[in-house]
Amino acid sequence: MNKFLSAFLLSVSSLYAQAQSTDSVMMKRIYNEVLTRGKCYENLDYLSNKIGGRLSGSLQAQQAVDYTFGVLKSYGFDSVYLQELMVPHWVRGAKEIGMIVKGTQQIPVHICALGNSIATPKDGLRAPVIEVRNFKELEAMGTERVKGKIVFFNRPMEPTHITTGRAYGEAGDQRGSGAIEAAKYGAVGVVVRSLTLANDTNPHTGMMRYVDSIPKIPACAISTKDADELSRLLKIRSAAVVSFFFKQNCEMLPDVKSYNVIAEMRGNEKPEEIVIAGGHLDSWDNGDGAHDDGAGVTQSMEALRLLKHLNYKPKRTLRCVLFMNEENGVKGGIKYADEATGTKHIAAIESDAGGFTPRGFGLDDSITIIMMQKWVPLFQPYSIDWIKQGWGGTDIGPLKKHGTVLIGYTPDSQRYFDYHHAAIDTFDKVNKRELELGAAAISSMLYLLSEYGIGK
Amino acid sequence: MNKFLSAFLLSVSSLYAQAQSTDSVMMKRIYNEVLTRGKCYENLDYLSNKIGGRLSGSLQAQQAVDYTFGVLKSYGFDSVYLQELMVPHWVRGAKEIGMIVKGTQQIPVHICALGNSIATPKDGLRAPVIEVRNFKELEAMGTERVKGKIVFFNRPMEPTHITTGRAYGEAGDQRGSGAIEAAKYGAVGVVVRSLTLANDTNPHTGMMRYVDSIPKIPACAISTKDADELSRLLKIRSAAVVSFFFKQNCEMLPDVKSYNVIAEMRGNEKPEEIVIAGGHLDSWDNGDGAHDDGAGVTQSMEALRLLKHLNYKPKRTLRCVLFMNEENGVKGGIKYADEATGTKHIAAIESDAGGFTPRGFGLDDSITIIMMQKWVPLFQPYSIDWIKQGWGGTDIGPLKKHGTVLIGYTPDSQRYFDYHHAAIDTFDKVNKRELELGAAAISSMLYLLSEYGIGK
Repeated sequence: MNKFLSAFLLSVSSLYAQAQSTDSVMMKRIYNEVLTRGKCYENLDYLSNKIGGRLSGSLQAQQAVDYTFGVLKSYGFDSVYLQELMVPHWVRGAKEIGMIVKGTQQIPVHICALGNSIATPKDGLRAPVIEVRNFKELEAMGTERVKGKIVFFNRPMEPTHITTGRAYGEAGDQRGSGAIEAAKYGAVGVVVRSLTLANDTNPHTGMMRYVDSIPKIPACAISTKDADELSRLLKIRSAAVVSFFFKQNCEMLPDVKSYNVIAEMRGNEKPEEIVIAGGHLDSWDNGDGAHDDGAGVTQSMEALRLLKHLNYKPKRTLRCVLFMNEENGVKGGIKYADEATGTKHIAAIESDAGGFTPRGFGLDDSITIIMMQKWVPLFQPYSIDWIKQGWGGTDIGPLKKHGTVLIGYTPDSQRYFDYHHAAIDTFDKVNKRELELGAAAISSMLYLLSEYGIGK
Repeated sequence: MNKFLSAFLLSVSSLYAQAQSTDSVMMKRIYNEVLTRGKCYENLDYLSNKIGGRLSGSLQAQQAVDYTFGVLKSYGFDSVYLQELMVPHWVRGAKEIGMIVKGTQQIPVHICALGNSIATPKDGLRAPVIEVRNFKELEAMGTERVKGKIVFFNRPMEPTHITTGRAYGEAGDQRGSGAIEAAKYGAVGVVVRSLTLANDTNPHTGMMRYVDSIPKIPACAISTKDADELSRLLKIRSAAVVSFFFKQNCEMLPDVKSYNVIAEMRGNEKPEEIVIAGGHLDSWDNGDGAHDDGAGVTQSMEALRLLKHLNYKPKRTLRCVLFMNEENGVKGGIKYADEATGTKHIAAIESDAGGFTPRGFGLDDSITIIMMQKWVPLFQPYSIDWIKQGWGGTDIGPLKKHGTVLIGYTPDSQRYFDYHHAAIDTFDKVNKRELELGAAAISSMLYLLSEYGIGK
């Protein structure tokens, strides 16, 4: 080999090794700090236990804005500010009542209204019930068999998918569009099997939709144990003798003013290139939103705090963005992306899959993956084994129109849907170290993106 | 390239691809079966909730032998049998009492006797207390300062180690040998900070040792919260005004007859080559031993059941081995290895790190690792990202003398020491899917070892 070339390659590779070593030293500092003096666990304790469920438009959602704004202010970033927006204001009202009615027998079941649903009539709604697994079965039944009935969507999440999010995605149409599809054939209400792989008595809420051209009918979720029982009874008796009763009192109120909360560390080499990390401040109202998405909120705050605390001077501009209204409208994500028009958001990281042990990062951009995969060895000592094709996140999704690379921080998925959108999504379900390791992973990714950009 | 060579390589590589595909089909069947009709979760429910803590020599340990023997019999293996051995029989007696005595004030603390420890005098033991972090500090204090005192070992597990087992290993000398070292300098008792990374009020028991040449003094574990409080008080007041009181009633009774439980599927091509998968039947007495090691027991049973149920005909002989007495003697592991003399145990897999999400396999044999790493792509769809240097397991350790390759099934380690050896190691701490994924991983590894051996 040519001596000059050889010397050049040697110097390049030694520069690279040096950079790798600087990076690994920085990451070690980040992880050491979070595991010994981390703040995210106590912040999550506050968000979950002092504030609790914080559905858009609620007092608690505003408290979450105030609290996180105050905490971020105290960390001494270059700036901390609010981004005003309007959000839907759906309220659940009094606790729902659900019953299977079998002849003269009434069997109480665990239900909750789906988010965005209308209420039942004041005295509740009772009708014969028919079970379907999907929209095709519903269509095959047609108006003749569906009219005047409550449609029971009972397709379980597929347990053989290893990534539970995939099973959630595949089962989601029943919850999201079940009421629209059933109403097309004259159904008077829908009951949807809770989207969870657990077999228990917790109903799991979540967003559903209406369209103006089709009558709006009330929709609730039923726990998996109760769904199995309802299905069993329907198999041994005809729909004529098994009916379903539910009463829910939810209501959509006028939109309310709310906020995204943003903190920034300005870049000192390429300040115009922006990298953000975020989660969503709002949560459903039935639990405390500890995993969904108190974890992502407190990890994003911690990710930026760690860099500030370690006196890191970012080359590019770094932001922590706490989005409002992911659960029932994504108004915060849309607002942030609209305001970002004309800026150069090179990458956005979202943490919205629970505070579990880190596994990897999912990217929606195949070119950037190739570049980023050389960072995998930096992450492997910290229980992150891959950077691969994957989903970014709902809140950062709207940034795609600006060409932003979307990065989903991906923790282990096995337990997530046990808690997701249910009353048991509480602080005690979050392990301190698992939460902290996630914060450090996001912080490290922010650091690397600040140092190297996305290589485009 | 030579045409023959080229054709040969093509046929080899196509054979290899075909084998890979057969293997991935088999693994998919294993995973589908466990995630839809798995038995390990209900077996663990029985072991944890119907039997509970099953310390060697106890009635519950015998019940665990009877129960697992019966279940394995029902699976229709070629043979199921017991291996008789003698085990130590240590009993805890009445619940321990612990107090910090500060002047006239008595502050109750959460303690438990360490396994193997002697009792305190009948009315308890009270003495001034001195805190040390390690044996070096103890030595520096010497007889002059230690004599007549209770030594408080308070070195926490290192939180910055990402693998918690490493932190456990590094802190273990205090618990294992603390009483021996302290007694050398005339101490009258030892209190050891619980080996956990959690900050709570659960004391964690575990094995300690005596040697005949040094006086035996009683040893207990104290919860981490109480350890921090004791340390704080010692910092603001001298040992002269802070003393410690504890009373424990444990006792070592004569050895008792017990059993390993073994099930076997005979190989039909190389029956003389044996591969085993196992966990330990005994547990500590304070909790239900759900993670430690009900998980490993039920996963090992399930690993073999899955292969049988799927009608797999093993090439090599496969065994599930449920070892007795891992916690305080390893008599089962020693017995099994002794009986294995003259046989060809090519590999042994142990699951004794909790029923958490799978991460990888740790091997103690660097040559076999190279061979096995080509299996990693088969495991990656199932959330197992690596096969690397690591620890096999305590029960299979004695097989090393026969040249057996030792393989540690390695789940995620973050939560393990929260529960380990404590009263909260109960069934509700185990996630069904995480347990099942582990059983399928072990089953898949048994399958691959049955098909290909260890390539030596």
